[in-house]
Amino acid sequence: MSASRCLIMQSEVQSFIERCMVAVGTKPGHATSLAEVLVEGDHRGHYSHGLNRMDMYVKDIQSGICAKEGEPTIVKESAATALVNGNNLLGPVVGNFCMDLAIKKAREVGIGWVVANGSNHFGIAGYYSMQALKENMIGMSYTNTSPLVVPTRAKECTLGTNPISVAAPAKDGDSFVLDMATSAVALGKVELHHRRGDDIPEGWGCDSQGKLSTDPGQVLSGGGLVPIGGCEATGGYKGYGLGLMVETFCGILAGAKYSKHVRTWKVTDRVADLGQCFVAINPENFAPGFNDRMSDLLTLHRNLEPAEQGTPVLSPGDPERFSIEKCTELGGIPYHLNVVNHMNGVAKAIGVNPLLPTNVPVPE
Amino acid sequence: MSASRCLIMQSEVQSFIERCMVAVGTKPGHATSLAEVLVEGDHRGHYSHGLNRMDMYVKDIQSGICAKEGEPTIVKESAATALVNGNNLLGPVVGNFCMDLAIKKAREVGIGWVVANGSNHFGIAGYYSMQALKENMIGMSYTNTSPLVVPTRAKECTLGTNPISVAAPAKDGDSFVLDMATSAVALGKVELHHRRGDDIPEGWGCDSQGKLSTDPGQVLSGGGLVPIGGCEATGGYKGYGLGLMVETFCGILAGAKYSKHVRTWKVTDRVADLGQCFVAINPENFAPGFNDRMSDLLTLHRNLEPAEQGTPVLSPGDPERFSIEKCTELGGIPYHLNVVNHMNGVAKAIGVNPLLPTNVPVPE
Repeated sequence: MSASRCLIMQSEVQSFIERCMVAVGTKPGHATSLAEVLVEGDHRGHYSHGLNRMDMYVKDIQSGICAKEGEPTIVKESAATALVNGNNLLGPVVGNFCMDLAIKKAREVGIGWVVANGSNHFGIAGYYSMQALKENMIGMSYTNTSPLVVPTRAKECTLGTNPISVAAPAKDGDSFVLDMATSAVALGKVELHHRRGDDIPEGWGCDSQGKLSTDPGQVLSGGGLVPIGGCEATGGYKGYGLGLMVETFCGILAGAKYSKHVRTWKVTDRVADLGQCFVAINPENFAPGFNDRMSDLLTLHRNLEPAEQGTPVLSPGDPERFSIEKCTELGGIPYHLNVVNHMNGVAKAIGVNPLLPTNVPVPE
Repeated sequence: MSASRCLIMQSEVQSFIERCMVAVGTKPGHATSLAEVLVEGDHRGHYSHGLNRMDMYVKDIQSGICAKEGEPTIVKESAATALVNGNNLLGPVVGNFCMDLAIKKAREVGIGWVVANGSNHFGIAGYYSMQALKENMIGMSYTNTSPLVVPTRAKECTLGTNPISVAAPAKDGDSFVLDMATSAVALGKVELHHRRGDDIPEGWGCDSQGKLSTDPGQVLSGGGLVPIGGCEATGGYKGYGLGLMVETFCGILAGAKYSKHVRTWKVTDRVADLGQCFVAINPENFAPGFNDRMSDLLTLHRNLEPAEQGTPVLSPGDPERFSIEKCTELGGIPYHLNVVNHMNGVAKAIGVNPLLPTNVPVPE
């Protein structure tokens, strides 16, 4: 048993986040949407995008920098496209609205391509792309974010970690779920190494002069993350290009903030006005047998002989599937005690009761 | 002056390729389409996808493994989508047909998403995405290809270099043009190092045991290219995921061959039946001012202070723009003499006359 962790039921975390958000004035429906995305983040093992970030959303509503009232609105629309104004609502409220709309259009004309401006952080990108799986469709989601990534050859952060998520349904509930930042790694991984005093692998980040560095301290103070591919010789310019592609689909197409015009990470001095993009594609409009081929593609890869015994070849989405299976087996989500204690402190300060339980140990 | 190179006018290469293709029975219109894509490849500096590959296409038509007669046909269609049968015609014939269709749909409903099965190698992916620029639209193109890439944790090639191309129009003829393989590098780069006896950087390829190798010989004999990002620790699983994403849009959605079911590279024992995907998106359907924002995004990056003096920060498409400017300045495309001599040999064997001129030196 690990003394530094505790187990909490998914429904308890869900209701806790809802109550905290409502306590600061969030509409109950919006609070539920946010809680669902954050809990799903934790459930899938992406703790950096779960309960861990609740205080940020609480603060955004409390300070009024994020809107409490209203719903997203459609600004412009065709049978297959829409431009949506997120009206500065919580990211998941905007994301759900847009993804539902994209799916509706894909049901009618085979594809829905919906972009939003006036949005906010929406949690894990995969949450939205995966909504399409319920309709046996391909889903995609993209968002721009605050600048943390230094373009190839440069020394200044001008791009966010700009994630790409694509989900595609296979047979019997199986699926392909790609959910990746276009930076080599997430900022959280560099922070973790820094806290532990460990070096980072070459190709994660650079110093303030734009040179690759294995010192996480250099990356965090004046340097930045680098695009997937690392330096120019190993193809970093491709990751840089993908970051710009996401920006094109998001800030540029939506008429939202983009690139270095997006506010600084963790500085909420003005509204975020993020741009986001949501797509649904109906395989029914293309060749029959999509699910079978998708299953074969995934299985074929999972069954490849691994380069190292005991390290099986995975399909995108498998690590998250293992995390979910683990939670099911445990009967809850394992959390670090300091995250739970911190969030209980946040809750106490806004008069929320009961707090999250910290007394259930995680069986090893 | 370089004795190993010669300068040839674009129109001369165009007509030479057309005549060679027609000599083996290609329809004149199809020959023109192919020649245009190959010449554009060379013009943009991607010599691996230009004249250098003409013999492959000649052989494909000569052997009958690629169809001479007919045109692509629409199998299924909605206002925004289409499934096309390429009827085993030359890749550029299929590509042009599909991209035209995607643009037509984007004019009507804001987006066109067209996938093709029964296709063949189509040259540079950027040729098709860039067609959308003429209509002030965003264009995308994707294709699967023969297995050359080893998935993360595996030791067998199961994915092609599966390129992604996205083009977006800025102001005054400027544009963003991403055209990248989802492998760390192209096979041609590894072959070039091997011929020179040079090592390759770590993160380009692996040996037959799936271990990263700096020996190009190991990569070329039994090993393979690795996805963008290199090994697992530096994010190679993201490149692997992107390769699968391209496969999902191409072979899987189109019902064509996919992954390791695609025929072996350079072995034309059976029809290719490649899957390809072509998309056009009309910015008019989204927020006004798209071109202005796009220009600002590109300029903002080009004007960044470079990490190393004399190595300016680029926007995707800039290296190709420099290559085109160089050709304009020279009054033609510079070719290596052995490529030209080889292709003249191919032409002679099929009775084509006149051959390409080799007597114009390239001014240094």
